[in-house]
Amino acid sequence: MDQLLRVMNFNVSRDGIAAGEHQSLERPFGLDHAERLFAWAGATASWPMRTEPGGSRGLDDYFTRDFARHIGAEIMGRNKFGPQRGPWQDHEWQGWWGEEPPFRTPVFVMTHHTRPPVTLSDTTFHFVGGDPAAVLARAREAARGKDVRLGGGVTTIRQFLEADLVDTLHVVVSPVTLGSGLRLWETPDELLDRFRLEVVPSPSGVTHHLFWRR
Amino acid sequence: MDQLLRVMNFNVSRDGIAAGEHQSLERPFGLDHAERLFAWAGATASWPMRTEPGGSRGLDDYFTRDFARHIGAEIMGRNKFGPQRGPWQDHEWQGWWGEEPPFRTPVFVMTHHTRPPVTLSDTTFHFVGGDPAAVLARAREAARGKDVRLGGGVTTIRQFLEADLVDTLHVVVSPVTLGSGLRLWETPDELLDRFRLEVVPSPSGVTHHLFWRR
Repeated sequence: MDQLLRVMNFNVSRDGIAAGEHQSLERPFGLDHAERLFAWAGATASWPMRTEPGGSRGLDDYFTRDFARHIGAEIMGRNKFGPQRGPWQDHEWQGWWGEEPPFRTPVFVMTHHTRPPVTLSDTTFHFVGGDPAAVLARAREAARGKDVRLGGGVTTIRQFLEADLVDTLHVVVSPVTLGSGLRLWETPDELLDRFRLEVVPSPSGVTHHLFWRR
Repeated sequence: MDQLLRVMNFNVSRDGIAAGEHQSLERPFGLDHAERLFAWAGATASWPMRTEPGGSRGLDDYFTRDFARHIGAEIMGRNKFGPQRGPWQDHEWQGWWGEEPPFRTPVFVMTHHTRPPVTLSDTTFHFVGGDPAAVLARAREAARGKDVRLGGGVTTIRQFLEADLVDTLHVVVSPVTLGSGLRLWETPDELLDRFRLEVVPSPSGVTHHLFWRR
């Protein structure tokens, strides 16, 4: 079977915005109320960062529970890993996720500024240069036959879409309008030349957009 | 985490019928055109019995791809295993699924007529007596911390519902009317005293019903 490159549980506003323009330590998404985008995920039983029992097991839960299934590696942009820019001042920063990151696979962090790998519990972050195709080749090898998750952020996803390397996308449109920020799209129709699309409204208020290659 | 007992990808007609009354070797579901119920599943990329590449990766595929995730055992009724009734005449019958059954876990076949286990590739069928609670206890132990799938048929699912042992159900209502046969329900509302329900129409024409305990 092919090793797919998959965007999963990626969240945007009604106007296609995934993050603000000014990320900081206090605002990982550069947004004042990022929870307005993500509340649907935290409400599900299978949310990977959930610490308490309970949670819904309806439609949204099918998407959060798919997070780790048959995934052997993740690719992320440097801005998903942390708020620093430019050369690393030190190597103290180890990501936003504490001692037990939810990935539990190799993670390839794309950056022009390499540093030694960081291992936290079952997750090892590798800091790699190169273009999207080269990074994907490394991630596929590390994934040992499983699929590769393309974790974001939005700039990284746009890079891989431009290089036509993405096989499937699950994009969650939340019922909020942000007005300005970093955009995945003006409209989902931009992808219809290359992808089939199913649009599935959830009782929670978000709308799941499922794309796969034609 | 709890070990859930889960009904998954279980198919009924618009009028709640899952099978005809007269099962036979030629008609495993006792229906003349069973494919009218199941066509949605065969169209998906992740259908466990798929032999060719391709298939859809929209909403329906999220359900078929969940088939094996975190499942450690299946429980099924004897009529799902085969068309024979009463004492086994011989042990030649090994199920409908050929040399590579899609379960790939221990499977507990409920029957008053035991026989030695059958192993085919990664699947071992155990033939067990006892009431639903006792069979579930054995399946949970075999599942080693994972969930247990309740595979059907409809009579078996009703038994476990009556014993209040089911944690979640995913029931797919297909847009066909059968009129007579073995019924899961008159209406899904019968389960609302004990379960929450989300009803999710799919672009394929089926409607996914997702139940989880209140």
